[in-house]
Amino acid sequence: MDKGQKPEIEKKDVIVIGGGLSGLSAAKLLKESGLNVLVLEARDRVGGRTLTVKGPEFQYVDLGGAYVGPTQNSILRLAKELGVKTHLVNEKERLIHYYKGKTYPFRGPFPPAWNPIVYLDYNNLWRTLDRMGKEIPADAPWTAQHATQWDNMTMKELIDKHCWTRTAKNFATLFVNVNVTSEPHEVSALWFLWYVKQCGGTKRIFSTSNGGQERKFMGGSGQISERIADRLKGNVHLNQPVIKLLQTPAGVCVETLTGNKYEAAYAISAIPPGLSMSLHYEPQLPPVRNQMIQRVPMGSIIKCMMYYKRTFWREKGYCGTMMIEDEDSPISMTLDDTKPDGSYPCIMGFVLARKARDLINLTKDERKKRICQIYAKVLGTNEALHPVHYEEKDWCEEQYSGGCYTAYFPPGTFCQFSRVLREPFGRLFFAGTETATRWSGYMDGAVQAGERAGREVLHAMGKVSQSKIWKEDVESQEVPAEPITTSFLEEHLPSVPAFLTMIGVSFAFITTAAALGSGILKTNSRLRLFH
Amino acid sequence: MDKGQKPEIEKKDVIVIGGGLSGLSAAKLLKESGLNVLVLEARDRVGGRTLTVKGPEFQYVDLGGAYVGPTQNSILRLAKELGVKTHLVNEKERLIHYYKGKTYPFRGPFPPAWNPIVYLDYNNLWRTLDRMGKEIPADAPWTAQHATQWDNMTMKELIDKHCWTRTAKNFATLFVNVNVTSEPHEVSALWFLWYVKQCGGTKRIFSTSNGGQERKFMGGSGQISERIADRLKGNVHLNQPVIKLLQTPAGVCVETLTGNKYEAAYAISAIPPGLSMSLHYEPQLPPVRNQMIQRVPMGSIIKCMMYYKRTFWREKGYCGTMMIEDEDSPISMTLDDTKPDGSYPCIMGFVLARKARDLINLTKDERKKRICQIYAKVLGTNEALHPVHYEEKDWCEEQYSGGCYTAYFPPGTFCQFSRVLREPFGRLFFAGTETATRWSGYMDGAVQAGERAGREVLHAMGKVSQSKIWKEDVESQEVPAEPITTSFLEEHLPSVPAFLTMIGVSFAFITTAAALGSGILKTNSRLRLFH
Repeated sequence: MDKGQKPEIEKKDVIVIGGGLSGLSAAKLLKESGLNVLVLEARDRVGGRTLTVKGPEFQYVDLGGAYVGPTQNSILRLAKELGVKTHLVNEKERLIHYYKGKTYPFRGPFPPAWNPIVYLDYNNLWRTLDRMGKEIPADAPWTAQHATQWDNMTMKELIDKHCWTRTAKNFATLFVNVNVTSEPHEVSALWFLWYVKQCGGTKRIFSTSNGGQERKFMGGSGQISERIADRLKGNVHLNQPVIKLLQTPAGVCVETLTGNKYEAAYAISAIPPGLSMSLHYEPQLPPVRNQMIQRVPMGSIIKCMMYYKRTFWREKGYCGTMMIEDEDSPISMTLDDTKPDGSYPCIMGFVLARKARDLINLTKDERKKRICQIYAKVLGTNEALHPVHYEEKDWCEEQYSGGCYTAYFPPGTFCQFSRVLREPFGRLFFAGTETATRWSGYMDGAVQAGERAGREVLHAMGKVSQSKIWKEDVESQEVPAEPITTSFLEEHLPSVPAFLTMIGVSFAFITTAAALGSGILKTNSRLRLFH
Repeated sequence: MDKGQKPEIEKKDVIVIGGGLSGLSAAKLLKESGLNVLVLEARDRVGGRTLTVKGPEFQYVDLGGAYVGPTQNSILRLAKELGVKTHLVNEKERLIHYYKGKTYPFRGPFPPAWNPIVYLDYNNLWRTLDRMGKEIPADAPWTAQHATQWDNMTMKELIDKHCWTRTAKNFATLFVNVNVTSEPHEVSALWFLWYVKQCGGTKRIFSTSNGGQERKFMGGSGQISERIADRLKGNVHLNQPVIKLLQTPAGVCVETLTGNKYEAAYAISAIPPGLSMSLHYEPQLPPVRNQMIQRVPMGSIIKCMMYYKRTFWREKGYCGTMMIEDEDSPISMTLDDTKPDGSYPCIMGFVLARKARDLINLTKDERKKRICQIYAKVLGTNEALHPVHYEEKDWCEEQYSGGCYTAYFPPGTFCQFSRVLREPFGRLFFAGTETATRWSGYMDGAVQAGERAGREVLHAMGKVSQSKIWKEDVESQEVPAEPITTSFLEEHLPSVPAFLTMIGVSFAFITTAAALGSGILKTNSRLRLFH
């Protein structure tokens, strides 16, 4: 058999594989530099892991990436240029920490602790994660002094090592679940420490006010990709999954699933690193990249939007943020998703990591019911049992995302494999939020990575100098960053073992008690002491 | 653009994706059942992870899967039917364990220990791995009583928990490296325990005599695939990477990179689970499978064959098996690869896991030189510095294998994801050694899985009953298995901590000493005690 008539081959300067925010950012920059650029997108829409849907029940909703905050200056600058404004996520009233079946309202980024031992343990946890993060260069994490040691352990091991109370340990697990949609025992400690660090630390990444969840885009984040696509009119081809990348000394040839062929001088891959497994390469990829792309699974999440008649939680003095520790709860974290004018009252909730995999097999109605039940418990009102509408998006099933929010590195893989993440392969350059060095995993990282890859191509063409490839954005005027501060107490309070030693509990007693049994048993007995 | 003339569509009963041993085993079984079957292979050769090459310097050589032994009754039966005979791997003389720069000759599957504490520690390690393995059902590891707990830890954690001496810990690392071409800190403990168990335990998997490395195939393992392909003549299409699988209620349509389309009633995927990322699916895969295939990286290995004028090692009383513990040595494990008639003297060596990634960037000549140097040290003769020929195969660079020997599951992934490994997806069934329940990861598992998937299709067609899908092979007459025995002492010797308690070292002392510092520091201090 043969393919029949040979199709005409289109010639471009640059072909961008993937019409998400990163690929479109690259294409926009290249087009503005006067180049002839083509974006090939697998789906029938642009936006990738951002997805704004419209409907009468909710006006519009972001079923994918949505949040934006201070220090995310690339996405803020791009959105402003495209005329997309932000609004604050509601955090006027109190947040809720729900654990052991009880609702504890609080203010601030993290739930407080009343038990002084737990207080010390929490404080030491955040301080330790941030201090370790400071040792890790955002652009070369494998060069950190303890890189190999931290890479060869899971975050679970790191948490077990530093947390002395079950309360802190459990909350640390939620912290990992929420930030990277994966489990502490699944991820490299080095990778997670790097991830938090390159977002600005534990407070910045986890906060609503002055943090990563401070704002959303009026009208939805999907507009950003759509408006770039409009500007690239005719040069974004949808329904064109790329199946082959052929490189010659003179250029690249890209083939799509529909049988189209395109030629260009350069190509940019702007798809998640793991999804680049879906291309066939000629010549084949270098060995480390060939194995790296098998080692970067996407996280697991179902994003769930529950619409109500009224914002009844605000009336009870709750802002809508709930951090829920309950193994039976599908949802671990919520935020108010009511429109800024108060219309379409809504609670946004995340089903994360292990729970996403467990709940995938339920029906949508069953998930809806179980979510309402936990909201009713946490908010203390049956009004939560009566939503007017429910929307959800399971990102685990998406062939052309693989999952959300981002890729993670399992233990032992970050040192040897992450260094090739954005290492060009001949005429192929790499964008995608996973290749960013600031807010990687976020929309901001997608823009940084896309524009950097674009400038790498410009540099390869001799159009910009090496020193211009990396460019720092100026701070957004509309969304300025308050500095993250640590108090004297936060800096200097002792850890739990240091405190116990101080008050005279003998070190031998602590360690003997701690070491009864070993490994997991040890940890349990350790925790039983202080909980 | 359009594809021009629509190519004619071939109609088959079953399309098998992948012409390795597993896909070919499936196709052979189906053809013998009277079906019209087609095998689509991405490469220009059959055999997948087996690869027999011919050349004047070595006659023939297996650069991929090669070893076979007792209890591997599926591959032994198939080879016999195809007229491929086995020969013993040389283990007449003594094996070598090399550590701390010294050569220790020994006999038996594992190096002995002279230090009684180390002896107890070794004994307890093998006993513990085998006992834990007994708890794990080979066909449903996620149902084991401690499945989640063991899955959520790495093998490194398990080793650190059970080994009290650095000697045992280091050898356990080599044991993981050799068996699964990955690092203890990379793999789920549950997965590794399952892997060893389904190969028959620690002694069976690691032994030459009476174990997984007892024999090789005369003329090379590649002949098996080639002879099956011959029997399927005309129905094995090479250079046909599959890019798309479309399913309708009536059947499947498979498209290849060259633009060919094939229709069939059923399809069998006989490629490694991670490499099924390279297909586009319509409808898309179920969510758990969509995420599973991102979580099963292939191991890392360079297989290195050093040819010499004489089998000088045998003259020194060494059989050619070397277990090398030396961070500077590229090679961790060797076996004699001289032809059974004594011609083409050769040492086969494995560059494994972290070392494969480190050494990939050297030139072939540099690797050759460094390998000769360590052989000269370990064998105590400069004759090892003067090979007559060198062959190597880096499996990390293979686009259509992804690595070798097999896929591993990182921590936390085996329970939630392995259960869909061979779960049919509509009209698509799953073969490949990773889906086997006995000697998975080996040629034997490939055959078991291929034939089982073939019978699943026959069952779906109403041609065989459900109870006939799984079939146990009778024991090979030519390669009978001696039972694996454990002595009274092996069963009943105390572990190191039990022994120390027995002889009166106070438990508080042990645990206090053990617990100085915690986590990694703890382990180190623990080991310093007894090493």
